[in-house]
Amino acid sequence: MTTVTMRPDAVNMPDAAQGTDSVAIICGGGSLPAAVAEALSRSGRRPVMFGIKGWADPVSVERHPHHWVALGQVGRLLRLARREGCREAVLIGAVLRPPLTKIRLDWPTIRAMPRIIRAFRGGDDRLLKGVASIIEDGGLRIVGLDALAPEIFVPEGVLAQRRPTEGDKADIARAIQVVAALGPFDVGQAAVVADNHVLAVEGVEGTDNMLARIAEMRRQRRVTARLGTGVLVKSPKPAQDRRFDLPAIGPQTIENVARAGLAGVAVTAGSTLIAAPMEVIAAADRANIFLMGVSEVASP
Amino acid sequence: MTTVTMRPDAVNMPDAAQGTDSVAIICGGGSLPAAVAEALSRSGRRPVMFGIKGWADPVSVERHPHHWVALGQVGRLLRLARREGCREAVLIGAVLRPPLTKIRLDWPTIRAMPRIIRAFRGGDDRLLKGVASIIEDGGLRIVGLDALAPEIFVPEGVLAQRRPTEGDKADIARAIQVVAALGPFDVGQAAVVADNHVLAVEGVEGTDNMLARIAEMRRQRRVTARLGTGVLVKSPKPAQDRRFDLPAIGPQTIENVARAGLAGVAVTAGSTLIAAPMEVIAAADRANIFLMGVSEVASP
Repeated sequence: MTTVTMRPDAVNMPDAAQGTDSVAIICGGGSLPAAVAEALSRSGRRPVMFGIKGWADPVSVERHPHHWVALGQVGRLLRLARREGCREAVLIGAVLRPPLTKIRLDWPTIRAMPRIIRAFRGGDDRLLKGVASIIEDGGLRIVGLDALAPEIFVPEGVLAQRRPTEGDKADIARAIQVVAALGPFDVGQAAVVADNHVLAVEGVEGTDNMLARIAEMRRQRRVTARLGTGVLVKSPKPAQDRRFDLPAIGPQTIENVARAGLAGVAVTAGSTLIAAPMEVIAAADRANIFLMGVSEVASP
Repeated sequence: MTTVTMRPDAVNMPDAAQGTDSVAIICGGGSLPAAVAEALSRSGRRPVMFGIKGWADPVSVERHPHHWVALGQVGRLLRLARREGCREAVLIGAVLRPPLTKIRLDWPTIRAMPRIIRAFRGGDDRLLKGVASIIEDGGLRIVGLDALAPEIFVPEGVLAQRRPTEGDKADIARAIQVVAALGPFDVGQAAVVADNHVLAVEGVEGTDNMLARIAEMRRQRRVTARLGTGVLVKSPKPAQDRRFDLPAIGPQTIENVARAGLAGVAVTAGSTLIAAPMEVIAAADRANIFLMGVSEVASP
């Protein structure tokens, strides 16, 4: 009987970098989890991917030390993270609110069920906070990406070739106000404004569906703003917990903005995630739309 | 040269009730203009329909003394209204923001163009206020429906058989807050909340399209709230000019609420218009959804 049997989980994990700086990346869908893992590797830390079954991209997950967990397997996640030597975790990537029947419950999760059900009765933010607090009670600290992987945030300034006009800037300012006004309600983090007119506010449908709606309303002549006017703004809620569910953009966002006939995209610098920044900028240049990071405090 | 030639418009209008209480009803689409005309007739006034070409329903318009006007023919509208002895007008029914190319301009309108263009750079409310002020400068006073046709407003209370639960009432209160928060932005006047979670906020797409989105998100499992939970709330913006663009419901609203799998509809009493109230209540009872008018000040 040695320390090995006292920590039986570690026995079969010779590659677990005991004592080094391993970070658990709890991975939802999309390309952000891979970007975070690469940023962590570059900064000398060891990413351990915990792919959420049905959401995470297998290719991204399996490129690094990894495990798969089902939604609801908080006990399994905590046990494996401990075994891997992780004390910190990040939550990254898309997970839509799951139907309760799709969740696989293990015992630690079942014990936490009353709290999870309470968290379900609210916005996405409350749900995530509820899940995060359950994970933290199990000894795994959920941290934000600001310190761990600052390069995956959109910086301030104009990022592609096209520059916003004064009219675009006025639309940006108005859209930021709209998103801020909805802050207390844990609803979407995006809006579209054209010629000072609020065309759409994001709800549960997500940014891509909201942009598809703009394109459809243009076809129906329900939106009559000239092609190439209007902006998409993404901005975190004022009270957003910065450890999860920050707004994000990727190449697809740019393509959908172009299809919606807008002039460009503005996001709050330092608090919007960007997957594949070079691809995003190239897509913006191809479509001739502007892309800009604006300061969170002042309107541009 | 007599007074007749000084008022040449009146010559060919022997049926114009000179000096009586004629009211111009400037008619957009839907069944509300007909309901307003009937309410006016019942109260002893004479409705004169001004159907907006391409929007108003010919059957409703032509049941009463009427004229057709194109969007942009403010001069023609004013001349005909004068001829009909109308000093007051109501604006009622749906007119989406028209593409500028579809507007037929007469001279009085061309002179007002700078103001119209300014009004276009804003929300629907600003556009309507701009148009109303141009009409009023021509001597036709735009009035609200409160005094003229109070019976076309939803009254306070539960109107169909089903009653909202405590959970429904909490969702109603939250949705009212969401709409109020968006008040300064001249955006939609409706939101959908289920289990305290804001699912959708209405933009330019309109209530029916927003409800279709909820139905679609249910199919995609993006909305996982139990069938038969969630409420649609329609409520005017806090600073809404009550002379136009008040929220409205009709039988179709109820059908779309049922398709979206919601529990019911709540609207602010006394400031939401209802077309065909008996049909609306019958539709609510058929679909087993609740329908209620809530007080504008307090949450229910």
